[in-house]
Amino acid sequence: MRHFRKLFVLRNYGTRVDEGWQAAVRSATVPGPIGIAQKEEYARLSPHMAATMRIFFDIENSLGNYIADVDGNVFLDAFSQISSATLGYNHPAVLAACESNEMKNFMANRPAMGYFPHSKFPQQLEQTLMRCAPPGMDGVTTMMCGSCSNENAFKTVFKAWMNRERGTDEVSDAECNAANFNKGEGNKLSIMSFTGAFHGRTFGCASCTNTRGRIKVDIPLLDFPIVDHPQLRYPLDQHAAENEAEESRCLEQVRHVIKERAKAGKPVAGMIIEPIQAEGGDRTASDSFYRRLRNICLEENVYFIVDEVQTGAGVSGKWWAHEHWGLETPPDVVTFAKKMQAAGFYYRKSLNSNWGPTIFNTFVGDPARLVILDSVLNVNEAEDLTAKAADVGDYVKSEILALSEKYGDIANVRGRGTLVAWDHPTMAARDKVVGDAMKEGLLLGGCGNQSIRLRPSLTFDKSHADEFLHLFEKTLEQ
Amino acid sequence: MRHFRKLFVLRNYGTRVDEGWQAAVRSATVPGPIGIAQKEEYARLSPHMAATMRIFFDIENSLGNYIADVDGNVFLDAFSQISSATLGYNHPAVLAACESNEMKNFMANRPAMGYFPHSKFPQQLEQTLMRCAPPGMDGVTTMMCGSCSNENAFKTVFKAWMNRERGTDEVSDAECNAANFNKGEGNKLSIMSFTGAFHGRTFGCASCTNTRGRIKVDIPLLDFPIVDHPQLRYPLDQHAAENEAEESRCLEQVRHVIKERAKAGKPVAGMIIEPIQAEGGDRTASDSFYRRLRNICLEENVYFIVDEVQTGAGVSGKWWAHEHWGLETPPDVVTFAKKMQAAGFYYRKSLNSNWGPTIFNTFVGDPARLVILDSVLNVNEAEDLTAKAADVGDYVKSEILALSEKYGDIANVRGRGTLVAWDHPTMAARDKVVGDAMKEGLLLGGCGNQSIRLRPSLTFDKSHADEFLHLFEKTLEQ
Repeated sequence: MRHFRKLFVLRNYGTRVDEGWQAAVRSATVPGPIGIAQKEEYARLSPHMAATMRIFFDIENSLGNYIADVDGNVFLDAFSQISSATLGYNHPAVLAACESNEMKNFMANRPAMGYFPHSKFPQQLEQTLMRCAPPGMDGVTTMMCGSCSNENAFKTVFKAWMNRERGTDEVSDAECNAANFNKGEGNKLSIMSFTGAFHGRTFGCASCTNTRGRIKVDIPLLDFPIVDHPQLRYPLDQHAAENEAEESRCLEQVRHVIKERAKAGKPVAGMIIEPIQAEGGDRTASDSFYRRLRNICLEENVYFIVDEVQTGAGVSGKWWAHEHWGLETPPDVVTFAKKMQAAGFYYRKSLNSNWGPTIFNTFVGDPARLVILDSVLNVNEAEDLTAKAADVGDYVKSEILALSEKYGDIANVRGRGTLVAWDHPTMAARDKVVGDAMKEGLLLGGCGNQSIRLRPSLTFDKSHADEFLHLFEKTLEQ
Repeated sequence: MRHFRKLFVLRNYGTRVDEGWQAAVRSATVPGPIGIAQKEEYARLSPHMAATMRIFFDIENSLGNYIADVDGNVFLDAFSQISSATLGYNHPAVLAACESNEMKNFMANRPAMGYFPHSKFPQQLEQTLMRCAPPGMDGVTTMMCGSCSNENAFKTVFKAWMNRERGTDEVSDAECNAANFNKGEGNKLSIMSFTGAFHGRTFGCASCTNTRGRIKVDIPLLDFPIVDHPQLRYPLDQHAAENEAEESRCLEQVRHVIKERAKAGKPVAGMIIEPIQAEGGDRTASDSFYRRLRNICLEENVYFIVDEVQTGAGVSGKWWAHEHWGLETPPDVVTFAKKMQAAGFYYRKSLNSNWGPTIFNTFVGDPARLVILDSVLNVNEAEDLTAKAADVGDYVKSEILALSEKYGDIANVRGRGTLVAWDHPTMAARDKVVGDAMKEGLLLGGCGNQSIRLRPSLTFDKSHADEFLHLFEKTLEQ
C-alpha cells in the first residue's frame, strides 16, 4: 500500500529518465542464486574483493535511480555507488558523452598530462572544472581519485608552508639528501584532522582518517594530530546553547593543539575538514563553526583544506557544500572526486610556490572523466538539479522526522540537500535495517557506527523520494 | 642521409600501423608558436601543471609510434607517455575496444567495485589479468594507479605480518582505537627499499622512493629503511668479479638492516624492488642477486614485493621482467600499472589473511581499463610482441654500443628487451641531448641523474629502431 504524504511545492523538472520504473525483488535472498554462484567463482580469482561485495551490478538493465543485479532484482538506489554516480544509471546525456569521439580518443590514447597534456586541455579545464570552481579558487590540478587528491593537497600545503618559513623556494642539496632518506626537516610537519573524519586510506590520508580503527590497525601512520569534531545534539533548535558550547570547546582545542605543537617544534602546516563527515556518520557543525575555524587557521598560519569528495557536485543544495558557510576568506585548497567524475583539487594561486616535481605522477588526472563532467554540468544547468537537491532533501528530511515520531528507533535526523542521515539505536540495529531494506528493493548505505545516509544521484526527485519513504517504512514495519 | 646498419635476423611481424610515417619538425622551436601561446592560457588555469609540460599532444594526428603536437610537428616517440602507451597511438584494436558497448557501459556507469562489481567481472578478470598473471600468483586486486597499487600492497603486507605475529586475524578494540589515533602497534613496521628506487609519490610510496630528493623534500615521511642497490659496472663481462662483490655487499647490508631493525623492535615487514630501477636511472642487478634477495626474505620472514609498474607488459622480452630471474619461490606481491592499462596487484592467496576494510576504496579499480588490456593481450598474442621487444631491444642495444664507441660521451649501455638505457657524462649533457633530439623529431625520456631511457611502445619495431638510431646519431653529431 502506497503512503501519500504532505506535498511540498517542488519545481517542475520534466520527465524522469526512469519513468515507469520501480523497485522489484524477485529472488528469495539477496544476492539470489545466480549472484551466490558467481561470487564463488569471483572468490577464487580475487578473494579479497569478493569478501566485501554486496551484489553483482547488471549495468545494462539499470536505469536512472534503479540498479539491477545479476538475479534480475531491481533496487531503488539511495547510495549511488558510494555516492559517486552523479545522474544515475545510463543517463542519455552521459551515454552520449561516452559515445563521443573525444571520449574514444582520450581512452585509446591516455595522455601523461604532466608532460604531454592533450591539445584541447586548457579549453576543457575552462569548460568543466573552472565553470564550477568554488568562489575565490583560481587554480586547479587534476588527479586520479579522492585519496590521490587529498595526498597531493597535503604535499602542496607542506611545500607552501616550508617555502614560506624559509622565505625562499630554494632548498639546499643537504636538505634534499636528508629528505631522500626519510630524514628531512619536513618530518616535523603535520596535517590536523578531526575525530570521525574520513579522508581516504592511503598512508597520508589514513593518518587523517578517524572513522573505524579497523581500517587503520596494523599500519604505520604519520604523527598527525586528530582533534575533537563537535558532536551536535538534535533537533538543533532545542539544543542551541549546548551545541554552541560544544563548538567553542572544539575550537579551543584546535587552537590549543596548534600552539602546543608549534611550541614542541612540530608545527601544524594544514588542517583538513569535510563540510559533512560522510563516512564518519554524517556529522557536521554550524556555519559559524567553520567561519571561526577558518579564522583560527588564518591567525595561526595553518593552511585550510576542505575535503568535498563526498559533499561536492550539487548534493548539498549548492554546488560546493562549503558555499553554505559564508566564509570571508576562501579555503586554501578544496579537494574533489566521486560525483564530480573527475578528481583533483582547486587552490588559490597565492599558494602556488614552486611545488616542483612533488605534485606529479604518470597521468596527473584523466581527461576522459572531464568529458563526463561536462555532460553533468550541462544537465545540472538545464534541469536546475542543485536547487532540486535542496528541495528533495528538505522534503525527505521532514518526512523522516515524521517517521521518527512514529517509530521510536530513528533519531538525530539531519542533513543538507540530499545529504540526509539519521541514527538507529545500535550498529546491529542499523545493519539489520540496511539488510532488510535490500529485501524490500531499497539500496541504502550505512555510515559511522549507527547511522544511515541517504546518498542518491542528482536525478533523485520527489517521486523517487516517495518510493524511498514507502519502502523504508515497509522495512521499519517489520 | 639515412644510415643503414647491420641487420639482425628479426621475425616478420606484418605491416606497421604507422606505415609511411616519419618524424618531421616544422616549427623553429619546440613547442612552436601555437604551443607557446596555448601554454600561457594553460598557466592561467593550472600554473602547476603548465610548469612541467613539454608539448601539447595532438591526439587525432598521432599514430602508432609517432606523436603529433599542436604546432604540427611529428616526433618518433621513444618515451610512450612515460612508458604507459602500450601499442602506440590510435591502434585499431584499441580504438575498437574503446568504441565497444562494454566500454561505453563502464564509462557511463562506473561501478564501486568493492561493493557492486559489475556482473561480468569474474569473467573479465579471467580473460585479462589472470590470462597474463605472473607464475605462481593466484590472486589479484584491481586498483587505481601505480602509487595506489603500491600503497595497498604495503598495507596488505603489514596486515599479513601482524596477523602472522599475533597468530590471529582478530584485533582488540583497544588496539583499533590506538591505531585510529595514529598510535597503534603498526607504527613499528616498515617496508625496506633501495637507493635509486622509485615507487611513487604518495606518502607511503614516497617513503620508499629514493630518486631525487627534490620530490620528497619538505614532506613528512615514514621511518622506512633504504639500503644500497648494487651499482654494476659495464660492460658486465669485463667486471664480473667486482660486480659480484658489489651485489654480495648489498645483500649483506639487506640482512644486517633487517636484523638490526628486528633487534630494535622495529621489524621490516616487507621489501619492495623494481626489476629495473626505471625512474632512478635504469639500474639493475644480476638474476642471481634477485634469487638470493628472495631467499633472504624467506629466511627473515619479510614479504617480497616486486614493483612491475614500468617493467611489466612485455617490454623486457617476457611479460613480467621478474620472470627472467628464475625464482624458486614466487614473489608475495607483484604490482602493476602503466602499460598494463589497468592497475593493481597480484598476490599469493596464502597471504590473504583478513585484510578487512584496509584494502578498499570507492572504485577499487576500473573495468574500462580492463577492456583495453584485453585488446592489448589479443594483439600481443597475435603478433608475438613480447618476443619482438626482446629482438628489437637487443638490436638497439648493440647499435647504441657501436655509437658509444664512435661518440665518446655515451657509456654504460644496458637493458633487457626495449628497456634500454645509457649514460651521458653529466645531467646537463643528458638534458641537452634530450632537448636537441626533440628538435630532430625524436622524443626521449631521461632518468636518474645522467641517463636516457628507451621506453617505446610494444609496436616499436626494427624500422622504428632504425629511424631512432638515425635521429639519435644526428643529435649526437651536433
